[in-house]
Amino acid sequence: MTGKNIGIVMGSDSDLATMKEAINVLREFGVGFDVNVISAHRSPERAHSYATDAEKKYDVIIAGAGGAAHLAGVIASLTPIPVIGVPMLTPELGGLDSLLSMVQMPSGVPVPTMGTGKSGAVNAALLAIQILSVSDPMLRQKLAVYKKKMADEVAKKDTAVRTEFGL
Amino acid sequence: MTGKNIGIVMGSDSDLATMKEAINVLREFGVGFDVNVISAHRSPERAHSYATDAEKKYDVIIAGAGGAAHLAGVIASLTPIPVIGVPMLTPELGGLDSLLSMVQMPSGVPVPTMGTGKSGAVNAALLAIQILSVSDPMLRQKLAVYKKKMADEVAKKDTAVRTEFGL
Amino acid sequence: MTGKNIGIVMGSDSDLATMKEAINVLREFGVGFDVNVISAHRSPERAHSYATDAEKKYDVIIAGAGGAAHLAGVIASLTPIPVIGVPMLTPELGGLDSLLSMVQMPSGVPVPTMGTGKSGAVNAALLAIQILSVSDPMLRQKLAVYKKKMADEVAKKDTAVRTEFGL
Amino acid sequence: MTGKNIGIVMGSDSDLATMKEAINVLREFGVGFDVNVISAHRSPERAHSYATDAEKKYDVIIAGAGGAAHLAGVIASLTPIPVIGVPMLTPELGGLDSLLSMVQMPSGVPVPTMGTGKSGAVNAALLAIQILSVSDPMLRQKLAVYKKKMADEVAKKDTAVRTEFGL
Amino acid sequence: MTGKNIGIVMGSDSDLATMKEAINVLREFGVGFDVNVISAHRSPERAHSYATDAEKKYDVIIAGAGGAAHLAGVIASLTPIPVIGVPMLTPELGGLDSLLSMVQMPSGVPVPTMGTGKSGAVNAALLAIQILSVSDPMLRQKLAVYKKKMADEVAKKDTAVRTEFGL
Amino acid sequence: MTGKNIGIVMGSDSDLATMKEAINVLREFGVGFDVNVISAHRSPERAHSYATDAEKKYDVIIAGAGGAAHLAGVIASLTPIPVIGVPMLTPELGGLDSLLSMVQMPSGVPVPTMGTGKSGAVNAALLAIQILSVSDPMLRQKLAVYKKKMADEVAKKDTAVRTEFGL
Amino acid sequence: MTGKNIGIVMGSDSDLATMKEAINVLREFGVGFDVNVISAHRSPERAHSYATDAEKKYDVIIAGAGGAAHLAGVIASLTPIPVIGVPMLTPELGGLDSLLSMVQMPSGVPVPTMGTGKSGAVNAALLAIQILSVSDPMLRQKLAVYKKKMADEVAKKDTAVRTEFGL
Amino acid sequence: MTGKNIGIVMGSDSDLATMKEAINVLREFGVGFDVNVISAHRSPERAHSYATDAEKKYDVIIAGAGGAAHLAGVIASLTPIPVIGVPMLTPELGGLDSLLSMVQMPSGVPVPTMGTGKSGAVNAALLAIQILSVSDPMLRQKLAVYKKKMADEVAKKDTAVRTEFGL
Repeated sequence: MTGKNIGIVMGSDSDLATMKEAINVLREFGVGFDVNVISAHRSPERAHSYATDAEKKYDVIIAGAGGAAHLAGVIASLTPIPVIGVPMLTPELGGLDSLLSMVQMPSGVPVPTMGTGKSGAVNAALLAIQILSVSDPMLRQKLAVYKKKMADEVAKKDTAVRTEFGL
Repeated sequence: MTGKNIGIVMGSDSDLATMKEAINVLREFGVGFDVNVISAHRSPERAHSYATDAEKKYDVIIAGAGGAAHLAGVIASLTPIPVIGVPMLTPELGGLDSLLSMVQMPSGVPVPTMGTGKSGAVNAALLAIQILSVSDPMLRQKLAVYKKKMADEVAKKDTAVRTEFGL
Repeated sequence: MTGKNIGIVMGSDSDLATMKEAINVLREFGVGFDVNVISAHRSPERAHSYATDAEKKYDVIIAGAGGAAHLAGVIASLTPIPVIGVPMLTPELGGLDSLLSMVQMPSGVPVPTMGTGKSGAVNAALLAIQILSVSDPMLRQKLAVYKKKMADEVAKKDTAVRTEFGL
Repeated sequence: MTGKNIGIVMGSDSDLATMKEAINVLREFGVGFDVNVISAHRSPERAHSYATDAEKKYDVIIAGAGGAAHLAGVIASLTPIPVIGVPMLTPELGGLDSLLSMVQMPSGVPVPTMGTGKSGAVNAALLAIQILSVSDPMLRQKLAVYKKKMADEVAKKDTAVRTEFGL
Repeated sequence: MTGKNIGIVMGSDSDLATMKEAINVLREFGVGFDVNVISAHRSPERAHSYATDAEKKYDVIIAGAGGAAHLAGVIASLTPIPVIGVPMLTPELGGLDSLLSMVQMPSGVPVPTMGTGKSGAVNAALLAIQILSVSDPMLRQKLAVYKKKMADEVAKKDTAVRTEFGL
Repeated sequence: MTGKNIGIVMGSDSDLATMKEAINVLREFGVGFDVNVISAHRSPERAHSYATDAEKKYDVIIAGAGGAAHLAGVIASLTPIPVIGVPMLTPELGGLDSLLSMVQMPSGVPVPTMGTGKSGAVNAALLAIQILSVSDPMLRQKLAVYKKKMADEVAKKDTAVRTEFGL
Repeated sequence: MTGKNIGIVMGSDSDLATMKEAINVLREFGVGFDVNVISAHRSPERAHSYATDAEKKYDVIIAGAGGAAHLAGVIASLTPIPVIGVPMLTPELGGLDSLLSMVQMPSGVPVPTMGTGKSGAVNAALLAIQILSVSDPMLRQKLAVYKKKMADEVAKKDTAVRTEFGL
Repeated sequence: MTGKNIGIVMGSDSDLATMKEAINVLREFGVGFDVNVISAHRSPERAHSYATDAEKKYDVIIAGAGGAAHLAGVIASLTPIPVIGVPMLTPELGGLDSLLSMVQMPSGVPVPTMGTGKSGAVNAALLAIQILSVSDPMLRQKLAVYKKKMADEVAKKDTAVRTEFGL
C-alpha cells in the first residue's frame, strides 16, 4: 500500500470517528489513502488549493461534513475527479440538513451522496473501491470476495438467531 | 444613487424573478447596488474572485441560491462583510433544502438567512438597509417611514375588509 | 460510440422524461449506453438477471426510480460495479420518499445518490463519466472542457443580467 | 404448535429485540412461526430463494428492516402471499426513512406497513393472526378474547390512576 | 361475483376517485365488495355500527381517509377482521399527515397501511385478495397470473423504450 | 373545589407524567377535574360511553394521546363540548405524528390542539380555564393574576441573569 | 345577531378567502362577529391595542396567519380571553411553518390551533361556538343539530355512492 | 469596553447556556453588550417597551428563542435596527419549529436567522460585529484576524489528524 489513491477529507476533527469507518475499509482492501481536515467555510483557501491540486494526487475524494455541508460540493466544483459525500449525523435534525445540503447539487456538478453517518462512511470507501475497480480487476475480485463474506456473515447470524429459537 | 453599496448575486438567472424583489426595495430607498449571476458550483473561480474582491466594492452582499444552496456560504467564507442568504423556493422540497443548506452554517461563518422566496428577497434588501442605517441616520429615518407606510397599508386593508362586511 | 459502457435502467417508462437528461449528457460525451425499463417490484426476476449479468456488459449503472425506490439497491446488491441512484420527484412527498429509500443503504452496499429529478439525472451521467475518466484521460479532458463551458455559460448569463440593469 | 404458518424475517440481528415482540404475540396465540435473518442487500441470493420458496412454507411473512428498508418489498415482489413490513426505528431520522422506504410501494406490489418499532412488531403479529383467522374461527375467537383483555387492562390502569387522585 | 367479501369504506365522497382504483382491482379478480361513505368524525355512530357489524358481513375492510385519518383505526378498534388503511393525498402536507395518522397505531390494534393515493388503493385491493387467497387456491392462482402480467407489461415497455433508442 | 368541570383523559398511563402538568394548573386555579385512562383503540366502547356521557359531567375535556393520536377526535365526534388535544412527545418522530394526527381534523369537528408534551398540557389546562372564564368573572380575574405572575417571574429571571453579568 | 362576541382577525387580506369559512359558520349559528386585518409584524401597535382592548369587546378571538405566524400568539400574550389560531396554507412548506409557529407556544400562553387552511377556519368558528355554548344552552342545542346535520349529509353521500355502484 | 452596542435578549433563562456563546464572542472582540431575559409571550409589555426603546440603546439586537419562537419577530416589528434570531434546539422537533417560526417572516420585517443552537449563537455575535464593522475599520480588522485564526486552527487539527495516521 504505497500510493495515495483516495483523498479523505473532513470538515472538522469531530467527524473523525465517522470517517475512520471509511479508512478501515480502505485498509482492508489495501487501497492507499490520504487524510485531511479542511473546512469549506473556516479554511476556504485551503479547501480551494486542496481541490485544485486533487486531480494530480487522487483518483477519488471522500468528503465528510455536517450541517450546511458544503465541503464536497466546493471541492467537486473545482476538480473533475469523483467527490463522494458523507453527510454527518447532526444532533439537531438527524442529519437531514447535512443530507439535503450535499445531495441537492445543481445540474453539472455531481456529489454522489451516501447515507448519513457511519454506514455512509463505510459505503463511501466501498464506492471509491468500485470506482477504482472499473480498471483494476484485482480490486473487482476483492469486491466479489467482500460481497461473499457479507452474505456469509448474514448466514451465520441467521443460524445463531434460529438456534436461539430452537429452529 | 451613485455608489454600489450592496452586491446582489444569484446562482442562476432563473433566480432573477425572486431577486428583483430585493432590487426594487433598494431602488425605493435610493441605495446603490450591483447585480451578478455567479454559481458557486458552476463558476467557482468567479465566485472566489467575487468574494475576495467584495470588501473593496460592497458594504453588504445579498446572495440568492436554491437546492444545495452554497453560494452565500462560499462567499461568506472569504469576506468579512455581511452576506445575507435568500433561499429559493424549489419545486421538489418547497425550499426546505435551500433553507437548511444556507442557515445551518458552522460556528465562525454566519449566513443570516431570510425566509424562502420573494418575501425573503424583500427582507434581504431591508436588512441590508438596516445594516447601512447603523451609521446612516438618513436611511434610518427612511426605514421609520417605511414601517409607518406598511402599518398604514394594513390599516387601509382593514378598512376595506370591514367595509365589505358592513362593519 | 460503439460499446455500451453505461447501463441506464428505470423502474417505469414514466421516468423516461427525467432519465433522458442522463442520456443527452452521455451522447454529448460520446459515451456508449444501454437503456432498459425494469421494475424491482413488478419484474423482479428480470431485475435479478439484469443485475447478475451487469458486470459483463457495463462499467457503471444508472438507476432511476421513485417512491419506495428499491431498483438501485436491488441491483447494487447483486453486482460489484457502481450503481448510481436517481430519485424521481413524486407528487406526494416531493421526492423525499425516493431520496431516503435510495440513500439510506446499509453498510456494505453503496448506492451513490444524486439530487431529485432532472438535475439528478444529468449529474448521474456526469458521475458515470467521472468514473470512466479515472482510467480514460480523453474523457477527463472532456470533463475539463465541460466545466469550462459551464463557467462560460454562467458568465454569459451574468453579462445578460447586468446589461438588463445597465451595469 | 407444530406448523410454521408465519415466516418472520429481519434484515439484521440488531432488529431482533424489536421482532421478538412479534414472536411473543405469535406464541401467546399458539401460532407457529419460523425466524430468519436475511438481508435484501447483503445476502440478496438468500433473500431471493427465501421469497421464491415462501409460498410453500408460510401463509404470511413478517419482514422487519431499517433505513433504505427494502426487505419486505423484495420478498413481496417474488411471492403472492402477504408480506407485512415493520419499519425499524433509526437513530438518524426516527424511522421516517424506514417507513417511507416500506410504505410507498408502487401499484401492484403491496407491503402492508405497521408503525415504527416495537408497537409495529406487535401489530404485525396481530395482523398475521387476523389474516389466518379469516378461515380459522378458533383464532378469530382468540382475537376477540385478546381485544377484551386489552380493554380490561386499560380499565385497570384507569382505576389505578383514579385511585392515585382519590377519584 | 355474488358475496360481499370486501367492505370498502371512505371518509368522504371526495375520496371516491382514489378508492375506485381498489374497486377496479376487486372487479378484475371477481371478488365481491360493498362500498360505503362513513366519516369517523362526522358520522361516528354510523362508523360504530358499521364496525361492530363488520365481522358478519366482510372478510376484510379497506378504509380510505385523509388528514387526521382516523377511520381505519376507529373501525379496527371494534372488529377482529383486518382493516387496511389507504392514506389520501392532501394538498397541505402531501399525505404525510394522513400516513402518520394511520400507520402509527398503538400496540394491539394493527392498521396495515398502504402508500399514499391511488397506488395505495390498488395495493389495498391486492392485499385484501392476498388475504382471501390464504384459504382460496383459485385466488392465489389469479394472483400469480396478475404478477406474470405485470412483468410482461414492464417487458413491453422495456421493448418500446429500447426501440425508441434503436437498441 | 367540588364539581368536576374538566374531564382529563389520556390514552395510556404512560401519559400521566405529562398530563399531571395540566392537573397541577387546574388545582392552582381551584377548578374541579376528573381523570381517566381510556384508549380510543384498546378500549373503544369505553371511549364511546365516556364521550356520549361527557356533556352531562364536564364543561371541557382535555385529551392527551400519542402516535396515531385519535382519542381527542373520537371524543369530539360524539360530544358538543370542547375537547382539547395534547399531543404526546414520541421517541420516534418527536411528536410530529401525534401533532398531525390531532390537529388536521376534518371540517366540522374541531380539536383545538396544544404544543407537544408538558407545555402543551399546561396550556390545555389554561385554555380550559379561559373557556370557563367566559362566563366566570372570578376565573377571569385569576387568569389576569396568573399572567401578571408570569411576567413577574420573567422579570426576576431577567434580574438574576443581569446580575450574573454585572448589569 | 347584534353583539360582537367573536373577534376575527387576520394578518393579511390574502387570508380572507380562508377566514370567510369561519364567518359563514358564525352567521349560520347567528353568532355576532367583528372582522379586522391586523399584522403582528407590519402593524404591531395596532395588534397591541387590539389585544389589550379585546377583553372588553369579545368573548373569543379567531386569528388567522401564515408563515412565521405570530398573530395569535401576540394577541394571546396580552388578553385573558381564548385566542384560536388558524394556520394558513403556504405555497412553500404546505403550512407546516404556519402550524409549528402557532402550536408550539410556551407554557403559560395557550393558542388552541386548528388544522391548516379552510377546514381549520370552519373548525375555529365551531370551537368559538362550543366555548360560548358552555354557558349558552341554546347554542349547545344548535351544535347538536349541526352534528346531526353533518351525519345526515354523510348518509346522503353514502346513499349516492352506493347507488352509483348498484348497492 | 464601555458602551452597550449589542442588546442580547432571550425568551427564557434556560436559553442562557446557548446565548453565552454569543456573549463570549462579543467579549473576545471587545464589543459592549447588554443582556435581558424577556418573553414575547409571558412578559409582552416588557417586550414591547424593550423594543420601542431599543433604537436609543443598541445598534443591533440578538434574540434567542425556541418553539413558537416569536421574540425576534416581535422586537423587529417595533424597531428599525437589525434583530438577529437564534433558534433554540428543542427536544421535540430538533429546533425545526424554532427555525421556521423565526425565518419565515412576512415581507417587510426581516429577521436574519442563524443556525439552530450554539453555532447559531456564535454566528449571531459575529454577524453583529460584521454589522458594526461596516463603519468601524478596527472591528473589520479584528474580523480578518478572527478568520485567519480559524483557518490556523483547522490547519492544526489537520496536522494532528494526519500525524495520527502517520501522514
